[in-house]
Amino acid sequence: MELVSILLMLLVLFTLARIGNRVFEHFGIPGLIGEIIVGIIIANLTLTGDGSTLLDLLGVQLPGPGEDSTSTNYSILYAAAELGVIFLLFSVGLETRVSELLSVGKSALLVAVLGVILPFVCGWAYIELTQSNFHHAMFLAAAMVATSVGITARVIKDMHLMETHEAKIIIGAAVIDDVLGMVVLAIVKGTAGSASVTIGSIVEVIVMAVAFVLAMIAAAMWLVPRIYTKWEAHEKKVEAKTGKPTQGFNILVVALVACLFFAWLAETIGLAAIIGAFLAGMLFADHAWETKLNEKVETLTTAFISFFFLNVGMQVDVALISSWNVIIMAVIVIIIAVITKFVGCGLGAWLADRKIPKDSIKIIGVGMIPRGEVGIIVASIGLNLIVDGSSALSSELYAVIVLMAVATTIIAPPLLARAFRKKYPEQFTITAQDKI
Amino acid sequence: MELVSILLMLLVLFTLARIGNRVFEHFGIPGLIGEIIVGIIIANLTLTGDGSTLLDLLGVQLPGPGEDSTSTNYSILYAAAELGVIFLLFSVGLETRVSELLSVGKSALLVAVLGVILPFVCGWAYIELTQSNFHHAMFLAAAMVATSVGITARVIKDMHLMETHEAKIIIGAAVIDDVLGMVVLAIVKGTAGSASVTIGSIVEVIVMAVAFVLAMIAAAMWLVPRIYTKWEAHEKKVEAKTGKPTQGFNILVVALVACLFFAWLAETIGLAAIIGAFLAGMLFADHAWETKLNEKVETLTTAFISFFFLNVGMQVDVALISSWNVIIMAVIVIIIAVITKFVGCGLGAWLADRKIPKDSIKIIGVGMIPRGEVGIIVASIGLNLIVDGSSALSSELYAVIVLMAVATTIIAPPLLARAFRKKYPEQFTITAQDKI
Repeated sequence: MELVSILLMLLVLFTLARIGNRVFEHFGIPGLIGEIIVGIIIANLTLTGDGSTLLDLLGVQLPGPGEDSTSTNYSILYAAAELGVIFLLFSVGLETRVSELLSVGKSALLVAVLGVILPFVCGWAYIELTQSNFHHAMFLAAAMVATSVGITARVIKDMHLMETHEAKIIIGAAVIDDVLGMVVLAIVKGTAGSASVTIGSIVEVIVMAVAFVLAMIAAAMWLVPRIYTKWEAHEKKVEAKTGKPTQGFNILVVALVACLFFAWLAETIGLAAIIGAFLAGMLFADHAWETKLNEKVETLTTAFISFFFLNVGMQVDVALISSWNVIIMAVIVIIIAVITKFVGCGLGAWLADRKIPKDSIKIIGVGMIPRGEVGIIVASIGLNLIVDGSSALSSELYAVIVLMAVATTIIAPPLLARAFRKKYPEQFTITAQDKI
Repeated sequence: MELVSILLMLLVLFTLARIGNRVFEHFGIPGLIGEIIVGIIIANLTLTGDGSTLLDLLGVQLPGPGEDSTSTNYSILYAAAELGVIFLLFSVGLETRVSELLSVGKSALLVAVLGVILPFVCGWAYIELTQSNFHHAMFLAAAMVATSVGITARVIKDMHLMETHEAKIIIGAAVIDDVLGMVVLAIVKGTAGSASVTIGSIVEVIVMAVAFVLAMIAAAMWLVPRIYTKWEAHEKKVEAKTGKPTQGFNILVVALVACLFFAWLAETIGLAAIIGAFLAGMLFADHAWETKLNEKVETLTTAFISFFFLNVGMQVDVALISSWNVIIMAVIVIIIAVITKFVGCGLGAWLADRKIPKDSIKIIGVGMIPRGEVGIIVASIGLNLIVDGSSALSSELYAVIVLMAVATTIIAPPLLARAFRKKYPEQFTITAQDKI
């Protein structure tokens, strides 16, 4: 374990990512796209005669699909990437009051449900009709379901628009979407005959996921305010008695423990870690400003989040795009993924509130498009699941799904930024400190 | 690579470390001792019938001395630990103006030089006289030289005493001490006949290390103020022209790049990464407050530093303390290490300034005692270096050095806190936010 090598990797990757971010922002394109593209370049561009990429030179070996062992430097990069997106969603939670979330509940639910059904049905139909392979169709469809809210969240946060109605609907829908995605995955695994999946176990995961989300909402509404009031009363009493302020708590430490705990818990019961982090952030939303907790979490996010977007880009193996077959399939799947999510979510928003402006429908539809890493995770489960002696997903479809995940991630942010800018033009005076 | 397992490890270790910190602070003992002791316990206490410790259950496998391969979770823990101490020293640098550092230059130099010579000579003499093994004596002596400033820095920062005269001398001396320690190590490796070490190469490392430190000091004094003035003038010009503020830079990103770069550079030329981080912090010292950079780096430090002290504790293999021979040797070496550093540094401070109060001499002497991880690194180099068919350091002496490093780390903070409290009693009104 070489500290020199770890530091060099972090230094080079962080610097390149921030340069990519800055260059793209300069041209009015969301900076995270620059970071993803830097990720694609450093993982694919060979620099030496023997075919080494910059990542190879930095000692970062990406694990192949289904591979478990990996290089020290990649584990560190991966942990930084995941912590980055966990902190990002935690800070989104800090800006989300549970009452606001519940006020958009109906819209969020319909956006999520239709935004899951449409991509699933169309994705399944496309593969079933062209390849007539039931399992392939089921896994591709499942991979098209789950919105990756990290990308949208960063765009909204960078634009300081977390307080808007549309942002609340998107965030709420993303939480529900993740629960639905998990249910879909459980069902798909079940139909592929995975021994560990039964109807009982599917019901179990559904109950657990819903119970988790509802428990967190209840905690944010009832438990936390009560604890806070009691604690304040206790502190005043001690102060009156001893004449000195109590030791108090370092709010950052308490917040980090809660963030890690609920991220871990969510991941353990099958939800995404970022959903747990978001719900944990919500617990602190009422007092985040007075304790400057939001600034602190923002600092952690700035230090880490670039590694997440780099890592998204690094998953793209340009060599996979060598066959026309794959390219054509990928283009069709990307088009289906974009249109079905946009139409499904837009329709959901409209059904929940017929008077919603067209601008808002557009923002919500676009904001739900990115699939990011969730789709890739579903795909690798399919690739590693053996049904009747062969993979439940072909390696061509795996490549297609990776391309779909990255493409939706790259397409959505500029569209989203434009849609927001059109609706909220007064917001866009850029302040120093926001940049690089 | 399991996200669940990474999150669980970070959650459990961070929570336990902060509980240890809190409990010790409650009894008036510096919290980092609590974190080190938690580290010792989780690495040594077996919890299950087959002898697994909590670390084993969390998937953290410590590499043995000289072993290179390691578990994913340990690499992540190790990176977090090192980043923690790098951020800590960076934030110490942010509070150190180069002019103040130079004003204590003479004291710092004498403290460092005598604080290196005395432990080296006495350590060498003890082993040479009892074991008459030249190489063993040389490596033990070299491991007794280098002060690990991270421990002292955290005590001083936690007590908000970085502005004191004594703190400046300790920090200055620690920088020089690190350069000297490197020179000693190069010479010791040379006498052990390491093929890669010649007189020429020793001179080279000395020149490089001194040049690095001087270049950083010069940059802080001349270059950075000029760049800053020019940048401000440029910003004003652009603003006057366009009527809008410029995009500006995110100071945290610039600071992180500088911190990683100089930490890496220092480590590459053979100095400790923390010395590079400290000098990098100094570059930003003049403008750290107005940009709130110190608060931001403090946030990063809070999130990471506990892993560093946990990791220090985890290095202690209680099984090594089984033989009386090792225990007696360790006790003698610890006594030599404490006394020689205290006397050497105190003498240096007195020689530089005959009118220095006794209280201050005590603070400086105690502040330089911790050896921490630097001694352990020197010891593992000795263990892996083969001279005439056997190791340049015996495994018993390796265990002794590890015990010495941990013991000096544990002994110094309470003594230092007491000495500071005696000299600056008015400082100690505890504010909330400092705690946990």
